Amino acid sequence: MAGSVLSNLRDCGFRGDLYAVNPKYDHVFDVPCVPTVADLPVAVDLLVLAIHRDLVLGTVEGCIEKGIVNLVIITAGFKEAGEDGIRLERQLSKLIDRHRLNVVGPNCMGLISSTREARLNASFSRWFPPGGEIAFISQSGSLGETLLECFEDAGLGVSRFINLGNRAGLTENDFLEYFADDPECGAVFLYLESFAEPSAFRRLVSQIGRDKPVVVLKAGRTEAGAAAVASHTGSLASPDAVVDAFLRQCGALRVTTIEETLTALRALERGTRLCGGRVGILTNAGGAGIIAADACERVGIPIDPLSERTQARLAEFLPAEAGLGNPVDMIATAGSADYERALDGILQETDAAIVIFRPPLVYHEPVEAVAEGILRVVDARPDKVVLVSTLSEGETVRPLIERLQSRRIPAYAMPERAVEGLSAIVRSQSLRAEISSIEAPPRRDVEAARGVVARAVSAGRASLSFDEGAEILAAYGIPVCSFAHPETPQAALAFAAKVGYPIVAKIDAPDLFHRFEQGAVITGIADDRDLDEAMARLRAIVDSLDLASARIMLQKTLVGRELIFGLERDPAFGPVVMFGIGGTLVEALKDVAFAVGPISKATALQTIRSIRAFPLLGTFRGQSALDIDTLAHTLAALGQVGLDLPEIEEIDLNPVIADGPRAAAVDILIKLRTPAD
Amino acid sequence: MAGSVLSNLRDCGFRGDLYAVNPKYDHVFDVPCVPTVADLPVAVDLLVLAIHRDLVLGTVEGCIEKGIVNLVIITAGFKEAGEDGIRLERQLSKLIDRHRLNVVGPNCMGLISSTREARLNASFSRWFPPGGEIAFISQSGSLGETLLECFEDAGLGVSRFINLGNRAGLTENDFLEYFADDPECGAVFLYLESFAEPSAFRRLVSQIGRDKPVVVLKAGRTEAGAAAVASHTGSLASPDAVVDAFLRQCGALRVTTIEETLTALRALERGTRLCGGRVGILTNAGGAGIIAADACERVGIPIDPLSERTQARLAEFLPAEAGLGNPVDMIATAGSADYERALDGILQETDAAIVIFRPPLVYHEPVEAVAEGILRVVDARPDKVVLVSTLSEGETVRPLIERLQSRRIPAYAMPERAVEGLSAIVRSQSLRAEISSIEAPPRRDVEAARGVVARAVSAGRASLSFDEGAEILAAYGIPVCSFAHPETPQAALAFAAKVGYPIVAKIDAPDLFHRFEQGAVITGIADDRDLDEAMARLRAIVDSLDLASARIMLQKTLVGRELIFGLERDPAFGPVVMFGIGGTLVEALKDVAFAVGPISKATALQTIRSIRAFPLLGTFRGQSALDIDTLAHTLAALGQVGLDLPEIEEIDLNPVIADGPRAAAVDILIKLRTPAD
Repeated sequence: MAGSVLSNLRDCGFRGDLYAVNPKYDHVFDVPCVPTVADLPVAVDLLVLAIHRDLVLGTVEGCIEKGIVNLVIITAGFKEAGEDGIRLERQLSKLIDRHRLNVVGPNCMGLISSTREARLNASFSRWFPPGGEIAFISQSGSLGETLLECFEDAGLGVSRFINLGNRAGLTENDFLEYFADDPECGAVFLYLESFAEPSAFRRLVSQIGRDKPVVVLKAGRTEAGAAAVASHTGSLASPDAVVDAFLRQCGALRVTTIEETLTALRALERGTRLCGGRVGILTNAGGAGIIAADACERVGIPIDPLSERTQARLAEFLPAEAGLGNPVDMIATAGSADYERALDGILQETDAAIVIFRPPLVYHEPVEAVAEGILRVVDARPDKVVLVSTLSEGETVRPLIERLQSRRIPAYAMPERAVEGLSAIVRSQSLRAEISSIEAPPRRDVEAARGVVARAVSAGRASLSFDEGAEILAAYGIPVCSFAHPETPQAALAFAAKVGYPIVAKIDAPDLFHRFEQGAVITGIADDRDLDEAMARLRAIVDSLDLASARIMLQKTLVGRELIFGLERDPAFGPVVMFGIGGTLVEALKDVAFAVGPISKATALQTIRSIRAFPLLGTFRGQSALDIDTLAHTLAALGQVGLDLPEIEEIDLNPVIADGPRAAAVDILIKLRTPAD
Repeated sequence: MAGSVLSNLRDCGFRGDLYAVNPKYDHVFDVPCVPTVADLPVAVDLLVLAIHRDLVLGTVEGCIEKGIVNLVIITAGFKEAGEDGIRLERQLSKLIDRHRLNVVGPNCMGLISSTREARLNASFSRWFPPGGEIAFISQSGSLGETLLECFEDAGLGVSRFINLGNRAGLTENDFLEYFADDPECGAVFLYLESFAEPSAFRRLVSQIGRDKPVVVLKAGRTEAGAAAVASHTGSLASPDAVVDAFLRQCGALRVTTIEETLTALRALERGTRLCGGRVGILTNAGGAGIIAADACERVGIPIDPLSERTQARLAEFLPAEAGLGNPVDMIATAGSADYERALDGILQETDAAIVIFRPPLVYHEPVEAVAEGILRVVDARPDKVVLVSTLSEGETVRPLIERLQSRRIPAYAMPERAVEGLSAIVRSQSLRAEISSIEAPPRRDVEAARGVVARAVSAGRASLSFDEGAEILAAYGIPVCSFAHPETPQAALAFAAKVGYPIVAKIDAPDLFHRFEQGAVITGIADDRDLDEAMARLRAIVDSLDLASARIMLQKTLVGRELIFGLERDPAFGPVVMFGIGGTLVEALKDVAFAVGPISKATALQTIRSIRAFPLLGTFRGQSALDIDTLAHTLAALGQVGLDLPEIEEIDLNPVIADGPRAAAVDILIKLRTPAD
């Protein structure tokens, strides 16, 4: 291992001085060697450790004495290797913190910089990537190396590669901070199994994402994957829907497979932007055009027919057998001039084009001519996006692919991949739009809410009563139904006179969560007689329950659509809000969406829109449309409650009843963190 | 074109005699040439036409005189090329029918046979596939050729290739009939844009599918694709969900992209079968194992931890850092012996394994050694399925890939592709199980049903009354709620006395479809007084509507879950049934499933299970589970109605109310075909 690292360092074109440290030699290869770190004759910029794990701590201490602060610790056998390793890593972390060391690793492959100015391969990777615009941060070493190899196969250039390993010192966030201003970085790609510090990650990616696409391959997407991650690094994987929401809120494009990674990076390496949503497909092979159009539809990119004017213009030079609608099928006889002219015509009205070229049987031009034609159109229309499919990666088309890639025009074999690349550009664009609308937190009265929580905590309670919950919600502008806690039948009648029938009567007791099972809710109270009866019945239950905190509560009956809002704490991401439509059907379908606090209005809207049953919130079967803005405010405000009040463990507003512009919580369940949590 | 075809024929290794026909030459290349078909000195097995379209009809007539019945017509300019071409193709079709010619094309690329016994390239394809087990039928020429090229790149062998072109004579069904008994065919692949004759296709594929996997790339999956198909061949594309259902019922595996095609065929080319559902993942690269496990979960293949016994057995020879759960991560130090031993251990308890091997940095064996180890295990356990991922297709791993592929062990670069291959095997298996359970049609009284329809047709009506509908449903064993058409208030009270309150009163008029909008339904009739009132109100409406056929109908009110059953006629597939859950929410979610008649019980069950809201049909919130068998019978019986009674255009049972074991149609709408249809 040490040998591979040293030869990589020696052979990579590194321009600085290089020393080996080993008590047994005076030279390793042709590199001068000293017995210990203390003997190094120069100030050291970076020390790479590839030694037995039992020697690591002592060597790090030697570095500290010598004033060496930047280290790559390749050595394995730490956190990932049982009790002893965990203990060792804890000691290492202490040294790192105390002496402010910059440490990559341990248990890592190292780091690589392949830019012309700074060539460094401080790793045992066999792959030294050709220069390029992608900065690549990988938590896993073996997958990192595999991906480097895949990138090279795919002709994707990487400017920097870091394998984080156990992250005892530096994390992805430290490198993100660097890449934000790194002119050699055009796009960032991360392979992560867990997040070192999600809030910092979010802040950094939101910032970088405005200029540079950030693509994340997050493993442990599913239960099976999560089990594998757990055994691999001991990290706690979060439920995947929350990870999805989190990455979207960061503005990062999530990919799920290696091929999807390559496809997205190919499309985004130059930070491609799209000005609008119209797409044209140009082909000389009808079937491939159909495959591409199908693939577009599947990813939600509409393929509309070209205007009659454009079709007429194309008809001027294309044969009668050509298809002109969209896809434009020029049939096999099309030459490079046809490609150039047709592409130019299509891009007059579309924002992007997928160009499919397969050298037909009778073809007398060099294939590069097609590339040159495409490039001339692209040069003349720099605001347009063009992706190419050659239907093969064989020798015939390789010169064309290479010419296009040298100019960073994404070229793929399969048309469905070109469509997936286009989809990555479209999604990346809409993520950017969402980031750019992050605003100040919603207005609220934090002090009032804190007071309510503090009183309950000091009383040693595990949950809040309805009126306490209502007070907190009111402090955040979340509407609650009209309610009262009448002490006497007279007070109950007075409430009814004020809000009108029908009315619901419940027992409000912070620890009596499952009211329904206990018969403690009486609905449909239609008049004074009903109300008297209900008060008496509930009074009897309260007396028999012998709960000091139990009180009778009346609410105005609301009619409308049932919604569910919730807040939970994720061990990694902190406050996570949930939105769904209430009722049995949705419960069976598990049709809910998540967002991680803080939540912008745009994200809240997007979260609400993302449930499958969203059409039900609009005008539907005679009910008027709900005010989505109000719902979005409630969702964002709940996230803010989670951020402001760490003592709150969980909130359930189930249901919130919404009718047209109005919405109000009818049931409020707020659990507090107990000392055991 | 003619030159390419001739040189292909000459150079492909064809063992028979070859003649050219052309008035201008006496030899073409070194092939003897005669001026006309009539001059051919031998009995001709196959004539390939690559001539101007205006000469085609005359030449075909010459063939008929000469007794030549087998033709490949490559010439284009027929149905696909406007009015003139359509006329020409109609004339050609007449000749084909009258003289029972076997014609491939016109407007096709031709056909290829690459088996050792019959080598023939009667096409202008540049690709003469290496022999193999895949029989490939393509409707599109250009995509066919592209796929042949992709197959060759992927090392997939093809035994026969046919490009159907315009299908004026032979269709995919004629070739399917041949491949059923073709010993050179191990799996059938079709690229189709439309079906020549769906019922024959279904019969043939159902039969072939028992022994050989049938994989279909059906383009025009989506609206955009369908538009492209329409301009490409003028075929009418059916709504895609129906195509999905149809192919599933045929037992064909549908793929949607070129890459998915290659992946599935790689896994299925030897007709792979799986004995059970347990899967193990074995890797020397942790991250790749996670990617694979994630991908498994996504396609619904669970990855369960290995038993403690197996883990203990693996722990005997794997290092402490290895992960033993599942994936089994042997870490980078694993050699070929470890692979062999671990794979054998895993397959003792799993039915399939995905083996990921990436040559690590320190690796002293030839990579083929890993292949040999895998092959020994596979030979010892022929009932197990093993797929391999090498994480690259580079030179390092090529010998391993080639060794595995020579033994038909599916090998892929990416782990997610290996998982997709496994998924193809799993799906293909479950499709087969469904085919094998096709049974006799449900018992029914066709004559009774025909009588009802015939009376309505002869009366010139466009739809049936409720009692007529009920009679038809009864003839097919589909339950209907209790109902009556009382002429007098006394008769109404008698019905109520018999079935009990509550009761619903409606106006039953075959042409009054939208009853709700007209206030013609009175629900919740609770007693005799209500009933008298309701009868009077509806009587007044009936009188005012002045509809001869309108009558008052009473029904027993049923309580339960609302379901929707429907029958429609698809222009391509004929009777298509639909199933869904009723109510506003499902309507908004469009959560429905389809099946094409005839419908087996297994298909009906599978269709019902496939809706997202299926859990709602089980025990849910205190309601007892519905009898899915009864619902499946209703679905299958509706399909049979569609097959037996072509005069019925459409049936809507909305809702059918189901409660525990009982289910009954409450509303029946049956439309008849009008002369205009």
